[in-house]
Parts: sequence; structure tokens; C-alpha cells
Amino acid sequence: MYVTIVEVHVKKEYVSNFIEATRINHLASVKEKGNRRFDVLQMTDEATRFVLYEAFASAEAAAAHKKTEHYLQWRATVSDWMATLRKGTTYNGLFPE
Amino acid sequence: MYVTIVEVHVKKEYVSNFIEATRINHLASVKEKGNRRFDVLQMTDEATRFVLYEAFASAEAAAAHKKTEHYLQWRATVSDWMATLRKGTTYNGLFPE
Repeated sequence: MYVTIVEVHVKKEYVSNFIEATRINHLASVKEKGNRRFDVLQMTDEATRFVLYEAFASAEAAAAHKKTEHYLQWRATVSDWMATLRKGTTYNGLFPE
Repeated sequence: MYVTIVEVHVKKEYVSNFIEATRINHLASVKEKGNRRFDVLQMTDEATRFVLYEAFASAEAAAAHKKTEHYLQWRATVSDWMATLRKGTTYNGLFPE
């Protein structure tokens, strides 16, 4: 499993817009063949901070996600709503195997 | 879904010990009734850095995890292997619902 943890900081006036746009992205992403998880999380202590937990079967499947229409649409939609640059960190999933 | 992302930095000489101890914790944790995910991740760019992605049905189920024998055993086992203090951040899982 190849995982990207994306940290997102949203301008506070766009929090509900961001949630709705990301819900749509989630629904399409979990249908991708190589997707294993696409969890959308909101920090309990700070409602403007989110994490997208994106797990794919392989690095190739993760790269294919970035070419999908729903990803590109999401990226364009949320672009002006970011308070700071998004930060993605990649991991090898050890367990589950 | 109630999620804790635990960032772990392990002394490099204990990386393989940590992986084995955490594998055992993973296998028991995913059997807990309230557990949804217990993913063990190793950073691709830095092999001494790990994330435990722990998702439970509720905050109560997450709290119950910390009272299990396997968690307490894991915590005691890995304690001397940490390079820095572990850091946990909690999130409300928005999607999947």
C-alpha cells in the first residue's frame, strides 16, 4: 500500500465549501481501481485544518489518481481557498500487508 | 470515525525491532470491535519515521484501545526505541461517513 498524507489548511470562510468539494472528490476517488482508502479528516482542535489520507495499491495507482478528471476538478476548485500551501508526505504501508 | 495520526521517530538501530513490535500491535488492534483501521506506515524518504493511522468508530473506542493489553505491551516495548517523543493528533473523519 502506498500512502500520501496531505495536510490542508483552509481559509476559515471557505471551510464548508472545501468540505463539499472534497466530499465529491472522495466519492469518485474511492471508485478508482487502485484506491484503498481516501479518508477526509478535520482536525478536532482546529476546524480549518484537514488531512486527506490517500492509500493506493501502488505508487503507479497514486500517480494515476492525479490524472483523473475528479482530482483535477477538485484541485482547481479549492485552489483559492487554501490558507497555506498543501503539504503531502508519502509512506510505504507496512501493515496491513 | 475518530482518527488519531501518531507520528513516531525511531532510533535507527531499533527500526526492525519497532516494525516487528508494531506488527503484533496491528494484528491485535484490528480485531478490536470499534477499530476501523490500524495502518502502520514508514516514510518513503526517511526510514526511521513512521505513522500509525488509527481509526475507530468513536472517541470511546479509541480510548478503550489504550486500555488493551496489546497496546500497553507495545507501549512498554517500544519506549526505549523512540528518538523523540511521539506526537498524536486527533481528527473527526468526515468521509467515509
